Amino acid sequence: MLKGNAIVGQSGGPTTVINASLAGVIKGAFAANEIETIYGAEHGIEGVLAENLVNLNERFADPKMLNLLIHTPAAYLGSCRYKLPKEFDEKYDKIFEVFKKHNIAYFFYIGGNDSMDTVYKLSQYAKRIDYPINIIGVPKTIDNDLAITDHTPGFGSAAKYIGTSIREITRDAQVYDSSTVTIIEIMGRNAGWLAAASALARTENEPAPHLIYLPEMVFDVDKFMADIEKASKTYRNVIAVVSEGVKTADGKYVCEGAAASVVDSFGHKQLSGTARVLADMVHAKFGWKVRSIEFSLLQRCAAHVASLTDVTEAEQIGTAGVNAAVSGQTGMMMYFKRVSDSPYKVEIDSYDISKIANVERVVPREWINEEGNDILQPALDYMLPLIQGESTAVFENGLPVYLKR
Amino acid sequence: MLKGNAIVGQSGGPTTVINASLAGVIKGAFAANEIETIYGAEHGIEGVLAENLVNLNERFADPKMLNLLIHTPAAYLGSCRYKLPKEFDEKYDKIFEVFKKHNIAYFFYIGGNDSMDTVYKLSQYAKRIDYPINIIGVPKTIDNDLAITDHTPGFGSAAKYIGTSIREITRDAQVYDSSTVTIIEIMGRNAGWLAAASALARTENEPAPHLIYLPEMVFDVDKFMADIEKASKTYRNVIAVVSEGVKTADGKYVCEGAAASVVDSFGHKQLSGTARVLADMVHAKFGWKVRSIEFSLLQRCAAHVASLTDVTEAEQIGTAGVNAAVSGQTGMMMYFKRVSDSPYKVEIDSYDISKIANVERVVPREWINEEGNDILQPALDYMLPLIQGESTAVFENGLPVYLKR
Repeated sequence: MLKGNAIVGQSGGPTTVINASLAGVIKGAFAANEIETIYGAEHGIEGVLAENLVNLNERFADPKMLNLLIHTPAAYLGSCRYKLPKEFDEKYDKIFEVFKKHNIAYFFYIGGNDSMDTVYKLSQYAKRIDYPINIIGVPKTIDNDLAITDHTPGFGSAAKYIGTSIREITRDAQVYDSSTVTIIEIMGRNAGWLAAASALARTENEPAPHLIYLPEMVFDVDKFMADIEKASKTYRNVIAVVSEGVKTADGKYVCEGAAASVVDSFGHKQLSGTARVLADMVHAKFGWKVRSIEFSLLQRCAAHVASLTDVTEAEQIGTAGVNAAVSGQTGMMMYFKRVSDSPYKVEIDSYDISKIANVERVVPREWINEEGNDILQPALDYMLPLIQGESTAVFENGLPVYLKR
Repeated sequence: MLKGNAIVGQSGGPTTVINASLAGVIKGAFAANEIETIYGAEHGIEGVLAENLVNLNERFADPKMLNLLIHTPAAYLGSCRYKLPKEFDEKYDKIFEVFKKHNIAYFFYIGGNDSMDTVYKLSQYAKRIDYPINIIGVPKTIDNDLAITDHTPGFGSAAKYIGTSIREITRDAQVYDSSTVTIIEIMGRNAGWLAAASALARTENEPAPHLIYLPEMVFDVDKFMADIEKASKTYRNVIAVVSEGVKTADGKYVCEGAAASVVDSFGHKQLSGTARVLADMVHAKFGWKVRSIEFSLLQRCAAHVASLTDVTEAEQIGTAGVNAAVSGQTGMMMYFKRVSDSPYKVEIDSYDISKIANVERVVPREWINEEGNDILQPALDYMLPLIQGESTAVFENGLPVYLKR
């Protein structure tokens, strides 16, 4: 049984509940006899490299602070998009020097696909140098694109925000007695889970959004224009949802050319403006009033309307990660196994990280309609349990209270 | 004492609480002996002209429906941007024909500046033809730009949404260890109240937003760039707020030229893209990662995070409008008179509509700092009471329930 200190880090894009997982890890570490002190690495693995460590036992001695942390969006410890090199180089030596210096026996990394790559590489390197440490990945991403796990913490709250906001925008879009088209752009580079979540907004007497385009399908601009025209014959106010990541048959993003392409350190193009480009086209062709709306950062940090299910699970999976580590597991990612849809029930287990890192899980073809402009009932049945319950952020003086590092 | 039926209409841009005022009018009408049936005009005065009237006694016989109405954003009855002509022409004859046919003795119009113009003109015309009807305006606008009244229903909830979202975006913007600039565009064509509300997001240890630009001040692009550069020396992640309506010294909107200008039926230019234009400039000059975010429609329809104070007052002022009308008043707008800031206390009274219609109230110069890139404490003291309390929208199955006409 390993005994010593622990480090926890956060990596990748922010989510509403990434700090609930952090709180879960902290609570687990506080409860574990094997862990003396738990440190937070500022800006993920970069904070380990730079030895920027925060003593979380001191910082969160007061349970009230942990409760605020649970409801604070975005990575409290700071995040990074740092990719470790393929070859084990001096960066690895440096990381393990820091581990050794601080008597680190446990390392927890809360993140998405790219972060699981870090977990995988570090656990491989530890094996190689025979350094006694248990390294566990805790999943996090609004994109819901991690393999093996039924869903990822962060997705449910983003889905709830999207469903809520689209219900509101739909009410707003219908107030005037004139034809309009509203095109809403949703995050999701390669996986359309979040765009699919827009369908949750529908009710018995409100079919909006009328069209949903996922990046899983080739995007055909002419077909899109025809879809809009057809929808406008039934609906005065057409609401269409497009994923930021939709690509035409030539493999280009719809927004490419329209805006300068910026590439981040993982080689991902930064997308923006897909809805705007399409809105301009629709307006030019049909002359209707067309509005484009980007949910932008709001969909990944709206802690004021988080899913209670998501917040609760995010915390639980963090604590479960600590329990797995102290029981001797390493090189694993924690994941959700869905036991049943109705009543909704999940179990938390761990899985070999090498099977998860760098694998992307997209919306299955059979959950998308034939035409490729909508999703089907099984997708709704899958998503609905994940947005249940309202998480009560702490409001003071009219606004939610969020912790700052 | 007039006896007969009533019509209520909604006009202008949607707000989160315009239906709370509608519910207030309906409740007032249900309680008033002088009013037999209250009808809703679909799409405001256009619905009167077209005789599209909905029987609200039937529609809202069930109090549960009224409660859902209170929490539903955007104009339940539909809205319009219809401006009555200056000269009393056949449109007026038609409106009063409909009034006569349906035995209308009371007309309530919930709206902003342009809608109060309608109230004014109709009450003048009624006098001229000696038609016995009491006509009352119920204020509504997220822009908070109506004269006489301390504030307008709708502003508090929009301000709460803006404050909440900026707190969340600020947490998100600070996660990476790199310089960024986030430029947030807030609604407000000529009045900067909503942009000013962004300052509510600040806390003792979080000064963001660092810069706030209101349309009340001439916008100088060079000064803006210098402000950003200066702020970036103190803050790694600069958050700047710009009103959509900021204009340069030559009287042009910053976004003009960048996007095609669309003009609505009141002659207002539709603005969009101010933040985007500025973001492109900042990125080109400094090379930092720059993100522009438009809150767009979300700020005027986010009923899921409405201000309880706003919702409550919106309903009260609707009912007060009915009470004023049945007590014999006409050609008046209801308004809030602030009795004290702390404890916050307002009274509702009525005021001659001719002094309010077509007058715009902007943020006073003395509430804006010398440099013109921030607001001052008195503005905060004024706004803070208006966002107090959380209105509990009705959630079912994970999402808020909103009524559709």
